[in-house]
Amino acid sequence: MLTAEIIAIGSELLTPDRTDTNSLWLTEKLNSIGIEVKLKTIVGDDDARLEEAIRDALRRSSIVIMTGGLGPTEDDITRKIAARAMGRRLIFNEQVLEGIRAKFMSFGRSMPEINSRQAMIIEGAEVLQNPNGSAPGMYLEHDNRSVVLLPGPPREMKPMFENLVQPKLVAKAGDVRVVRRVLRVAGLGESAVDERIAPVYTQYKNPQTTILFNRSEIEIHLTAQGKTEKEAELLLDGLAGQIEERLGHSIFAFRGETMEEVVGLRLAVCGFTLAVAESCTGGLISQRLTEVPGSSVYFIEGVVTYSNEAKTRALGVDAELIERHGAVSAEVAEAMAEGVRHRAGTDFGLAVTGIAGPGGGTEEKPVGLVYIALSDDAHTEHRKLQLPGDRHLIRWRSSQAALDLLRRRLI
Amino acid sequence: MLTAEIIAIGSELLTPDRTDTNSLWLTEKLNSIGIEVKLKTIVGDDDARLEEAIRDALRRSSIVIMTGGLGPTEDDITRKIAARAMGRRLIFNEQVLEGIRAKFMSFGRSMPEINSRQAMIIEGAEVLQNPNGSAPGMYLEHDNRSVVLLPGPPREMKPMFENLVQPKLVAKAGDVRVVRRVLRVAGLGESAVDERIAPVYTQYKNPQTTILFNRSEIEIHLTAQGKTEKEAELLLDGLAGQIEERLGHSIFAFRGETMEEVVGLRLAVCGFTLAVAESCTGGLISQRLTEVPGSSVYFIEGVVTYSNEAKTRALGVDAELIERHGAVSAEVAEAMAEGVRHRAGTDFGLAVTGIAGPGGGTEEKPVGLVYIALSDDAHTEHRKLQLPGDRHLIRWRSSQAALDLLRRRLI
Repeated sequence: MLTAEIIAIGSELLTPDRTDTNSLWLTEKLNSIGIEVKLKTIVGDDDARLEEAIRDALRRSSIVIMTGGLGPTEDDITRKIAARAMGRRLIFNEQVLEGIRAKFMSFGRSMPEINSRQAMIIEGAEVLQNPNGSAPGMYLEHDNRSVVLLPGPPREMKPMFENLVQPKLVAKAGDVRVVRRVLRVAGLGESAVDERIAPVYTQYKNPQTTILFNRSEIEIHLTAQGKTEKEAELLLDGLAGQIEERLGHSIFAFRGETMEEVVGLRLAVCGFTLAVAESCTGGLISQRLTEVPGSSVYFIEGVVTYSNEAKTRALGVDAELIERHGAVSAEVAEAMAEGVRHRAGTDFGLAVTGIAGPGGGTEEKPVGLVYIALSDDAHTEHRKLQLPGDRHLIRWRSSQAALDLLRRRLI
Repeated sequence: MLTAEIIAIGSELLTPDRTDTNSLWLTEKLNSIGIEVKLKTIVGDDDARLEEAIRDALRRSSIVIMTGGLGPTEDDITRKIAARAMGRRLIFNEQVLEGIRAKFMSFGRSMPEINSRQAMIIEGAEVLQNPNGSAPGMYLEHDNRSVVLLPGPPREMKPMFENLVQPKLVAKAGDVRVVRRVLRVAGLGESAVDERIAPVYTQYKNPQTTILFNRSEIEIHLTAQGKTEKEAELLLDGLAGQIEERLGHSIFAFRGETMEEVVGLRLAVCGFTLAVAESCTGGLISQRLTEVPGSSVYFIEGVVTYSNEAKTRALGVDAELIERHGAVSAEVAEAMAEGVRHRAGTDFGLAVTGIAGPGGGTEEKPVGLVYIALSDDAHTEHRKLQLPGDRHLIRWRSSQAALDLLRRRLI
């Protein structure tokens, strides 16, 4: 398999407010034609560091793609430094200059002298036309490496890559297709997941497996390559099947779907309706469910009852019950779930009450104590959770656990 | 000025759907203590490439910060490879193991055997405690370089850097202080903001000004440097004051506060209470408001009335009014705001109804049409918005506009 490296060039990419998004897009394009990105470097307008980065990349990877630093100013050093790193000269290209001049003319402007720098082309490089800007790109083969220079602005870079670079790389990469799949897990810890599935996935180099922990979700990323897409998909099916045997219903998504999409789809397919009553999650569950287009079919109503009075007034939770057990209790969670279900006349009522912190915790009921409850016309059940994390995370994990409770009921 | 390099480790960061956000945050922190980031590398779980990246970084930069790859699984290679790159051994640390074991115990779980890997510490390194996870960090001086290993999850990495690493680097960096300030703007477009304030900020090289467009908020980032923090702050005060003169109440935050924090603070200070009725935003406004700790003082109740029936049942919106004007109308928005205020007995009622898409739009009422309304005991008012963007963005912008309407009322 061919490997590529991406070098993003520009001091602005080393500030706190800018991130290099080109490389994400390029990675997707490269992956899809069977080229793996092994390293990304972000370097400023610094001659020595850029030269070293390019030399290192050429030593390691068969494809080196540079973006940025092809503009007309002093700061735009990519042309000069890339040439130096490869021991090639920069040659003034009259034809390119004429092209740039014509582009300016077409906007009724004359070309600033400074832009003539952009007509300096690395010896032996093919010029890549840039229909959306003045900086041409370059493509060359150097010591059996493909070297690509593209401008930084995405609207210039993307069409140039797709139209002019990708066809060359496809020819080089040959018959390799790479397919990815994301499995998502709820209700198990990262180490527990790894212990159960490591005996399986470590047997395979293809597909490759990566386990990611993201908030309270665990993602299992599988990447397979084959001569055809179908061959790669079959490899994924095989491994995903074995992983499913080990993790069962803890896997809630096999194609990267979100929890709210999965729950929503099941509700929609079964024709069930849902109402949600939230205390500590403050509307997060409703917000997640309604982020899914078409959710109005099954999501009927949400209530955020922060105060005890609101729980009684809006959900009919007995004030005495709250008095006796406290607002954060199994009894109140169940009463909230039943209350919101009756009120909205839905098939399911889902409720959360808890202490998200940072204040409000006691020794008996510490921050992170959360009760979730689910009610349908047959019965009402609850779960008690003690969640780690800060306010934001406790809220998110509570919402995830509540949605997962509903998902498991719908299986 | 000291220079730093950041190495983000993890194959997931080389996929199209993940980006390394840690380095942005770290860059800001490093800049603030006068350390410049000269290069960022993103490398996968690949022994040889990571080792080379670490060696290269150690050769070039006085501070090398690695994030990620400290988890308990086979894929987590940072400990091992960093040790190898520096020619140091990994030493099993009994005390660290006990700490990890205790952390699992505190959640009522026993430590999976696999986690004992995390007790391997690089020879000569200081262990950095991780209060939010099992992976400890490390700090060491190697050949006159500061080498820092931190876990990848931002919630673990950030406090560890701030509390344990930053003080060491401050001592190294000496007398340069860089201070940033983020002003946030609502209700004005990017070009309008730039037109008004460019005549001011272009006069200064210190502070530096960057204007960023983020969802529907415009952020004005000011960065000043001085010999002391106070000197830098004074420079910021001067420029921020001039910008305020030009933008007035459109600036809702001078210290990077979120809209919900600003609104919450004003409600709390004035002793006012609020209830929210949401249709297309689906709970997002309630969720944003309650994300702020202490919001239970002023946030009394939220209702998500997705269906027309729910609007009538829960908010007392006249069914005939909905019939006559449609659920997405100024009349219904105002009736929702009044309804939720009466129901919850609060000082203010805030409501949103609109079409977030992708479906549900008509020629007369296209996707993006949103009405927001605000009611208090004196009067009720509404705004009609036509918002660009996808479902997610329309929802977010609606929530922002609604909160801004309340903010301006509270001024």
